[in-house]
Amino acid sequence: MVIPRLIEHKRDGHALTPEQWSSLIREYTLGRVPDYQMSALLMAIVFRGLEPAELAALTDAMIASGDRLRFEGHPVPVADKHSTGGVGDKVSLVLAPMVASCGVAVPMMSGRGLGHTGGTLDKLESIPGFRTDLSLREARDQIDRLGCAMLGQTPEIAPADKRLYALRDVTGTVESVPLLAASIMSKKLAEGLNGLVLDVKTGSGAFLTDSALALELARTMIGLGESRGCPTVALLTAMDRPLGRACGNALEVEEAIEALRGRGPADLMEVTYALAAEMLALVGAAPDLIEARRRLEEAVTSGRALETFARVIEAQGGNPAVVDDPAVLPQARAVEVFRAERGGRVERVEPRRIGRAIVELGGGRATLEDSIDPTVGFVVTVKPGDVVRAGEPIASVFARDQSGVALGMAALREAVTIGEHGRLTPLISHRITARGVDAPPEALGCPS
Amino acid sequence: MVIPRLIEHKRDGHALTPEQWSSLIREYTLGRVPDYQMSALLMAIVFRGLEPAELAALTDAMIASGDRLRFEGHPVPVADKHSTGGVGDKVSLVLAPMVASCGVAVPMMSGRGLGHTGGTLDKLESIPGFRTDLSLREARDQIDRLGCAMLGQTPEIAPADKRLYALRDVTGTVESVPLLAASIMSKKLAEGLNGLVLDVKTGSGAFLTDSALALELARTMIGLGESRGCPTVALLTAMDRPLGRACGNALEVEEAIEALRGRGPADLMEVTYALAAEMLALVGAAPDLIEARRRLEEAVTSGRALETFARVIEAQGGNPAVVDDPAVLPQARAVEVFRAERGGRVERVEPRRIGRAIVELGGGRATLEDSIDPTVGFVVTVKPGDVVRAGEPIASVFARDQSGVALGMAALREAVTIGEHGRLTPLISHRITARGVDAPPEALGCPS
Repeated sequence: MVIPRLIEHKRDGHALTPEQWSSLIREYTLGRVPDYQMSALLMAIVFRGLEPAELAALTDAMIASGDRLRFEGHPVPVADKHSTGGVGDKVSLVLAPMVASCGVAVPMMSGRGLGHTGGTLDKLESIPGFRTDLSLREARDQIDRLGCAMLGQTPEIAPADKRLYALRDVTGTVESVPLLAASIMSKKLAEGLNGLVLDVKTGSGAFLTDSALALELARTMIGLGESRGCPTVALLTAMDRPLGRACGNALEVEEAIEALRGRGPADLMEVTYALAAEMLALVGAAPDLIEARRRLEEAVTSGRALETFARVIEAQGGNPAVVDDPAVLPQARAVEVFRAERGGRVERVEPRRIGRAIVELGGGRATLEDSIDPTVGFVVTVKPGDVVRAGEPIASVFARDQSGVALGMAALREAVTIGEHGRLTPLISHRITARGVDAPPEALGCPS
Repeated sequence: MVIPRLIEHKRDGHALTPEQWSSLIREYTLGRVPDYQMSALLMAIVFRGLEPAELAALTDAMIASGDRLRFEGHPVPVADKHSTGGVGDKVSLVLAPMVASCGVAVPMMSGRGLGHTGGTLDKLESIPGFRTDLSLREARDQIDRLGCAMLGQTPEIAPADKRLYALRDVTGTVESVPLLAASIMSKKLAEGLNGLVLDVKTGSGAFLTDSALALELARTMIGLGESRGCPTVALLTAMDRPLGRACGNALEVEEAIEALRGRGPADLMEVTYALAAEMLALVGAAPDLIEARRRLEEAVTSGRALETFARVIEAQGGNPAVVDDPAVLPQARAVEVFRAERGGRVERVEPRRIGRAIVELGGGRATLEDSIDPTVGFVVTVKPGDVVRAGEPIASVFARDQSGVALGMAALREAVTIGEHGRLTPLISHRITARGVDAPPEALGCPS
């Protein structure tokens, strides 16, 4: 295999064969293809894209670079959810125990905060003692016992993706729909799923702010999942404002526990139920979305969902008392209320600004080595379209000290705009399946 | 300077500032920017191109990475020629002494064979004893004494280009007009010239087979040269057949000596005179192209041009007797005549096939370490459009042994096509100056 010829071929708009992708990724993982050739090829892909057969072959090769979870003969179906990332997105924490308590196994493999977005692992680790570094064997054992494990990407899963992602991060080759799709799907398909639901965020706080690109990513991932034998559905959900009220690691765990009691903010409940219902329906654990939703609500009202969460926490070394007592979570030392500076209608609650402020407060990482402070963050109780009076409390800042409070207040002043004409965009704008965009938001019962 | 942001900026179609180019190349030359970032940037340039100010800044930075020749206060003007490379292209060997003997200094810095094309250095080294590895100081001293030196790219000249070229060669990023222009011009502008003439080859045997791309490269290099204070002119010349008759290192030296006696093949004489006349006119050593041509012809008929060549050979350690006795050159052990297999009109003499065959015969390199056999090659006495009889001798093969002869005969059978409708494309199709394409070929007195 002469690598420069492969690069030129892709550069000139031609497709590489599945065999070429497979040997390329194998040789790269073995360190026999230098990074400088791979990065040139990645940049050519940014411009030329990948044909479906190329994308499938690349993804297969990335999966084949490592180990995978295997659920052949498992007594219950297996499903997972992936989110492209946002601010206040604590859906995984609520959804995983909820779905597991409805008889679907959930091997929830998650990531850390990236840029301005939060990460499920960081949130979970704000529970004292909670470990996310399970091995594949530990995860598998726990799923057999509790129906759910919540872990980080293990070194065994798709190591080629790990190396490629690190290279893309420093060579300007992250923003490519097929490369994003291959990266996400190689990890998820290695989980041995019977069904996968994608939460593709769109709007100013998402990585793909352009909804046409978000739609293209959703379609690409669905095509890839289906072609690999994993039924896949995507919802496009709004990330032009934070999801729920709490933004920040421990604050989000507290809100997730409230949601598992059925008392979470309406938007968080809605997105979580919608995604979870798709999971149940996809793997045949419910005959349709309406019945799926009914069973999920029952799992919440009966307390089974919260109990499953408590057991998962205990199994992974955390203090399960947290589900009854939020004071178990580390608490911010400085808290201050933020009030509306004028009356009017909320026009914007900018999630990117809020996410950046959490990083500035110490609740996210600027470099990979940074440790994070789980206590800091925001609770924002208003959404675009809400009418507020001047001086009304509309948010709180949680910080380490008074200078953090000042920083947080300044961020809120920038993030929250009050004017005359705010309105809320639809929470779930598209539902995409292998057959296309097949249901308007109203059919899903989404508030808009 | 955050390199990934620079790469993204270029990827997204924006221009980098001159300061960014300058520090990027400086840091790269110092080994502080890794190859994997540079290759991603190079691929982005392949797709996005460079604006004129970016190209100028990149070229300046590449020049500044090393040393340069300086001719301030030199008693005569200084000019050089660059060819984009072809088969049978021995113009430099004829032109340099010819121009030097008309009172223009020629610091001819040349390259080695690349792919199917020959290189001036390899040709010169077929003269027993000839050294091309002059230092900048030696070259400068020789130019002061003889008006001409013929040398390889020294390590002092544009080291950034050397490193970038090696990286481009293995990352599919050679075929980019601005990158080609920056590479060529960084070396030529480091020669401290008063004028530069470009021989941009076009047709199946050229690197840029597409004449529109060749024209774009010519225009780009002219813009760059002029903006850097070096008057630059380009001729687009035909490389859909070999130039002259001899193809192969020692064979071409012999033909070049014949040309310096005024007895070279018509096409070789024509291209050489045209390029040389541009050099004289550019630097004001002749009032116009017609007078320039007259002086060049006089330098040939008087024997001064050949005498200059003999002195250069002697100064660089070679045996000057070669100009009177071709038997000084190493001779092929096996020679065989190739005859037309049918009568008709010559349709094609494919230079790329002939160039590849020279490499196969041992007269070029497959890897950088290969040593070459200067004796092997071809003499092809026909051009497209010529009428031939069946059985008429139309070429000769020069090889090491009979198996080489067989290989060479097979190559000629593929390279030379005889049919009904052959015709010769114009030898010089365009003359390009800073003002545009300003003279039709007829005005230059070119046979077509």
